Amino acid sequence: MQNPPSCKPSSAYSIGLDYGTNSARALVVDCANGAEIGMAVVDYPSGKQGILLDPLDHHLARQNPADYLHALENAVRGAIAQARAADPGFAPEKVVGIGVDGTGSSPLPVDARNRPLALDPRFASDLAAHCWLWKDHTATAEAEAITEAARRLRPQYLAKIGGTYSSEWFWAKIWRCLKVGRAVFDAAHSWVELSDYVPAVLAGASTPADIVRGVCMAGHKALYSPDWGGLPDKEFLAGLAPELADLRDRLYATAHDARTPAGKLCPEWAARLGLPAGIAIAIGEMDVHYGAIGCGVDEGALVKVIGTSTCDCAVVSSARPIADIPGICGIVPGSILPGYHGVEAGQSAVGDIFKWFVETVLGGTASRHASLTAGAAALRPGQSGLLALDWNNGNRTILVDQRLTGLLLGQTLHTTPAEIYRALIEATAFGARAIIERLREYGIPVSRVICSGGIAEKNPLLMQIYADVTGCEMRVSRSAQSCALGAAIGAAVAAGVYPGFKAAQAAMTALKPVLYSPDAGSQAVYDKLYRLYRTLHDAFGGVPQDAALPVSRVMKDLLSIKAGTRCGAAS
Amino acid sequence: MQNPPSCKPSSAYSIGLDYGTNSARALVVDCANGAEIGMAVVDYPSGKQGILLDPLDHHLARQNPADYLHALENAVRGAIAQARAADPGFAPEKVVGIGVDGTGSSPLPVDARNRPLALDPRFASDLAAHCWLWKDHTATAEAEAITEAARRLRPQYLAKIGGTYSSEWFWAKIWRCLKVGRAVFDAAHSWVELSDYVPAVLAGASTPADIVRGVCMAGHKALYSPDWGGLPDKEFLAGLAPELADLRDRLYATAHDARTPAGKLCPEWAARLGLPAGIAIAIGEMDVHYGAIGCGVDEGALVKVIGTSTCDCAVVSSARPIADIPGICGIVPGSILPGYHGVEAGQSAVGDIFKWFVETVLGGTASRHASLTAGAAALRPGQSGLLALDWNNGNRTILVDQRLTGLLLGQTLHTTPAEIYRALIEATAFGARAIIERLREYGIPVSRVICSGGIAEKNPLLMQIYADVTGCEMRVSRSAQSCALGAAIGAAVAAGVYPGFKAAQAAMTALKPVLYSPDAGSQAVYDKLYRLYRTLHDAFGGVPQDAALPVSRVMKDLLSIKAGTRCGAAS
Repeated sequence: MQNPPSCKPSSAYSIGLDYGTNSARALVVDCANGAEIGMAVVDYPSGKQGILLDPLDHHLARQNPADYLHALENAVRGAIAQARAADPGFAPEKVVGIGVDGTGSSPLPVDARNRPLALDPRFASDLAAHCWLWKDHTATAEAEAITEAARRLRPQYLAKIGGTYSSEWFWAKIWRCLKVGRAVFDAAHSWVELSDYVPAVLAGASTPADIVRGVCMAGHKALYSPDWGGLPDKEFLAGLAPELADLRDRLYATAHDARTPAGKLCPEWAARLGLPAGIAIAIGEMDVHYGAIGCGVDEGALVKVIGTSTCDCAVVSSARPIADIPGICGIVPGSILPGYHGVEAGQSAVGDIFKWFVETVLGGTASRHASLTAGAAALRPGQSGLLALDWNNGNRTILVDQRLTGLLLGQTLHTTPAEIYRALIEATAFGARAIIERLREYGIPVSRVICSGGIAEKNPLLMQIYADVTGCEMRVSRSAQSCALGAAIGAAVAAGVYPGFKAAQAAMTALKPVLYSPDAGSQAVYDKLYRLYRTLHDAFGGVPQDAALPVSRVMKDLLSIKAGTRCGAAS
Repeated sequence: MQNPPSCKPSSAYSIGLDYGTNSARALVVDCANGAEIGMAVVDYPSGKQGILLDPLDHHLARQNPADYLHALENAVRGAIAQARAADPGFAPEKVVGIGVDGTGSSPLPVDARNRPLALDPRFASDLAAHCWLWKDHTATAEAEAITEAARRLRPQYLAKIGGTYSSEWFWAKIWRCLKVGRAVFDAAHSWVELSDYVPAVLAGASTPADIVRGVCMAGHKALYSPDWGGLPDKEFLAGLAPELADLRDRLYATAHDARTPAGKLCPEWAARLGLPAGIAIAIGEMDVHYGAIGCGVDEGALVKVIGTSTCDCAVVSSARPIADIPGICGIVPGSILPGYHGVEAGQSAVGDIFKWFVETVLGGTASRHASLTAGAAALRPGQSGLLALDWNNGNRTILVDQRLTGLLLGQTLHTTPAEIYRALIEATAFGARAIIERLREYGIPVSRVICSGGIAEKNPLLMQIYADVTGCEMRVSRSAQSCALGAAIGAAVAAGVYPGFKAAQAAMTALKPVLYSPDAGSQAVYDKLYRLYRTLHDAFGGVPQDAALPVSRVMKDLLSIKAGTRCGAAS
């Protein structure tokens, strides 16, 4: 949190709430200048670091919706208390709106009165009744079946999502629940995304029909598009399972962009939070979409939120025609900024790969990152002779294949941990370049990159490597809480403090002074290394022209063999 | 060293001398039963663990010939002292012969009086004047040029060495010396392999012409074959460099198998060692060839000496026709046992790969091997989803390509060090299977495997994995010093204690009781994994039908890029 750039008394504040994977944070922002004057983080009390796990299935990741309400109250109250202490001009009465973002797709089942089933004692211990966290990968088979059905029957669906439906998304998870948690499925009146659920709570929506759904989460994750009348048609859904077709009636007909607010703060929650009733509740968006707004996204800029994974966002004016882009999973009108197509891409693991190498492989602590970074920084591009694929958690963009795995190549008997560490950073940079090249190929301009997230803030080596690999200038958002800031900007717009996002972003966002520019010498070496990366990427990723290569089957065949060992079978 | 199997007084003892990479050992053996009654190990005093290094070039590895003489005297005297203490029936007068083995190809330049140039004060500090240790890889360019010249002009040479001349061998090293150590080259009257040099010293050979050269080292490493009249013809050598053609006259016309002794112990060295003058000196062989004899090699058995790398040896009766085998670098009549073709293969790194992972990557000590082995042993075949290529030090057999590098594939964010450790063991087992399959394809019978070396003795997990991967029963030689034992057997035969090697091996070698049998269930999984290994192996190794694949260039292109970074060039 930085100091307010100016100290003049402000007339309006807004609050951004960011629901992350392990905790939620609330940020009190001065609408005049984006100054962040109060913040509180509340860890989710349930599970392991806020995640409910199944020791028998490491693909499962759920969250307890009670944690969301607990964090809502405590984070907002904490942030307000800090704002009071930090800014004499602040008072809770000056808060004009609240915006909420969250991870996604993280759907949860609710009853007819909008209560999460997990809060019903009958289902409290049933993991299927909790929120299906974005990184839950139990629905792989369902995602594949949806992709296959759409390929045959509704190719237009796939064209909007890069060609492959993901196990992380809405329909796959709900269908999975139908298969493995039938009692929960039957008891669910509707399903709602986390980032729609919390605004609905604040707005006092008393039935699922009252929830104002955001197009941001509906867009590609629920296969929603005005082109085909909203959610997938009942015939298609019935082909998957008749119960899904029935559910469609209890979901929603329309999803909205950020011009439509989610409602006004209800008296009950106004009292619980100590805020004025009736203030604006902005529509919910996915964390990185509000993050892009908080970073100052506009046409020509790619926003990368670099943390455990990355999410990459760009916007293109709705006035321009935009093609479907293979491997880019989300192009949705209004999903980020009203009046723009939102374009979303991402890398399934970035910081998680470094963390895996340092903590799981080397058995080191967080401090080891610093020494490895120093060692890696002493190396020149190409010097180690190593090349890696950044697929330890699959590939979200541009291959859209969760089941791909990691690869490290070029080891000798002299290869050091620092060399491997640098190769892993470079691999994520090559993955980032693959995304940028794909966007450009399809006419989305990318002339600069604005980053946010812990790694962007703390790792200049990574930022320089990204600049050298991508050939783009890399900048860092001034705010360390760009998602919560974006949500607060959404709240300021919803409250009418600004006429629209452009003006709000101009006032409330900024960049840090640091600039990472590509070094021509490094860029030349990385151009060569990137070509080799793409050779491996295409061969192992089974990119069409390479799909017939024997190596394109190796990673999947290993998974089949691994699956065979689980039942103790020899074959 | 085990206890004598029986205690009856013996009438004859022989001494085996084994010149390893870091030390030399002498072993006093009872010729009646192979009992090892005295042993002494002497570390080479020079360099780092006996190896002279060049901090600017990690391909360079030399040894000081003075160390060989130092070790000769001290190891033999030490072993005799121990034998005296252990066996009342022993007396130095009962020693009937000495056999010597050594690493190879490890050639050293000598003057006209058979003195190593390194012992001449003029050259003492010149690394080119010292012994060019087997693992010196400075002559890569020369080896490639020899391969290329032979491909054009003398394809018959390549057919005998698996298709590729190695940078580890005789002519490449000498040619390299001509290029980078001209003064040494010019001062050298001749060049001699370590395993021929020490027997010549013991026999008191006063000029290089008096040295009895072993066909074992001459065979493929010096491109010697009776098929073309011995060493490569002068025309071919002159095509490489006229000086090499001149040198040919000062090398040797004939090389001998173990039916020909290297001579008799000269009075000077008899006095220095405290042994009777005139006893038999067996011909020198490469360490693993005498090791194969010490393990009891015969037709149908593959002997694997498993240590930092492996060397694999088999024999096929000279009465049987034998084809040239692609990728098998040495098929030489008499190179192991007289009357048999000796067949030699090997893996460039085995224990070295585990050591690299534990010490260099994980920063662990030797004790970490035990905990990783325990973790690896708890895994089922295929369970980790990992697959590795065992090429961290190149691939000696069957690809004969020193410049290949390692690969690890299948990593997730959950991959553990024990899983990687097991994958590395499995990779070396797959490499071992590739060798066995290639031998069988060309009619060399392999029905059982006899192992020797530290890893074979100490790592039951590895031995079981090798059994499961290769489908062969794995046995371990009774002697932990199979090379020195084989040299002592050679000495017993040279002294006439036995009429030939078959009888000597029957009396003097044995196996440990432990037997590793393939497990059918594991074998079935490993059959699948091996097919995937071969897919990667052929694709990255550029096996003919896969040589056109883009991935086949990746490892080499990385080395080119790496080489480019050395000169600080960006391109």
